[in-house]
Amino acid sequence: MSKGFLLVISGPSGCGKGTVSKELLSRNEDIIYSVSATTRKPRVGESDGLNYFFIEEEKFKNMAKADEFLEYALVHNNYYGTPKEFVLEEVDKGEIVLLEIDVQGAMQVKENYPEAVFIFLLPPTMSELRNRIIKRGTETEEDINRRFTNAFKELEFVDEYDYFVINDKLDEAVKNIESIITAEKLKVKRHNNIREKIIS
Amino acid sequence: MSKGFLLVISGPSGCGKGTVSKELLSRNEDIIYSVSATTRKPRVGESDGLNYFFIEEEKFKNMAKADEFLEYALVHNNYYGTPKEFVLEEVDKGEIVLLEIDVQGAMQVKENYPEAVFIFLLPPTMSELRNRIIKRGTETEEDINRRFTNAFKELEFVDEYDYFVINDKLDEAVKNIESIITAEKLKVKRHNNIREKIIS
Repeated sequence: MSKGFLLVISGPSGCGKGTVSKELLSRNEDIIYSVSATTRKPRVGESDGLNYFFIEEEKFKNMAKADEFLEYALVHNNYYGTPKEFVLEEVDKGEIVLLEIDVQGAMQVKENYPEAVFIFLLPPTMSELRNRIIKRGTETEEDINRRFTNAFKELEFVDEYDYFVINDKLDEAVKNIESIITAEKLKVKRHNNIREKIIS
Repeated sequence: MSKGFLLVISGPSGCGKGTVSKELLSRNEDIIYSVSATTRKPRVGESDGLNYFFIEEEKFKNMAKADEFLEYALVHNNYYGTPKEFVLEEVDKGEIVLLEIDVQGAMQVKENYPEAVFIFLLPPTMSELRNRIIKRGTETEEDINRRFTNAFKELEFVDEYDYFVINDKLDEAVKNIESIITAEKLKVKRHNNIREKIIS
């Protein structure tokens, strides 16, 4: 019986972790997406258990106190968190669970669950990162500068990760992550009784 | 500047490590083959520095005493060993050096150079392993049984390795090793100043 693992794809805003994760999931239907819990109200088209687990603030706080999140954060008055139970159950079943998350969140996960596999997604250059932040088009000049400065600082955390992948071309970045997944699956430590399986 | 690594491909006799290594090298011209030193005389067609470093017994023994081998062994009155200097120099230059070696040798390498990447090559089944040992056709029934018993015992060492690859189909085994190489190259620990490279 082989154990799965939690794959954390992270990086500064503008590194393209959302796009890369989406493409990775669409090419690998066996990878399970880690669904976050949130106290925010569902938007039109969002469904419980698929986009988020929508829960009440009191329940969220109780779960946080009971140490039931791998990480959580308060963003614009709403809580968001990664329920531990869901991830651990799937990993135990041998599944690969993908968590796409910002650098702060990833560092919380590392603290609580260091056995996860941590990938830092990098922009090819800082000017490309700035272009990507600008291209979102929904932010003021001030927001853009703030995001860019944060991204710059967040790059320091790359040394806390297991792997880095440069997201220059999407296809190449996804293939590199697929190689990391293949290699991690072949790690002896994730398998019990390899010898017995060959012998029998 | 990124560091390379020593890739040790190992496994019991009959697992196909020779065939797999040859195919891996032919598909990846940037991988450097670790040339062994030996006190055996060159055979017709063998050239010094390509097939082996052919050296005198006295020199070999002095090198062994000076701890200049990653591993060595005496086989049929001839010494064979992996010169440390060659491997470490190439690794420092950022190269990937391939060492194909039996289980005893790999365990010596692990003792002397644990930072190498260790892959254990497995036969799909024990009966297939027996077939492969028989197919060599150069051995007596007694030799075959001895090899088979040894292979059986050597499987216990799989837990000492980083990765395992089942050599059922050659192409698949080579691709899995290529994924391991790709992933190992993307390890943060093999790179200095990732952040600085992106910033500049």
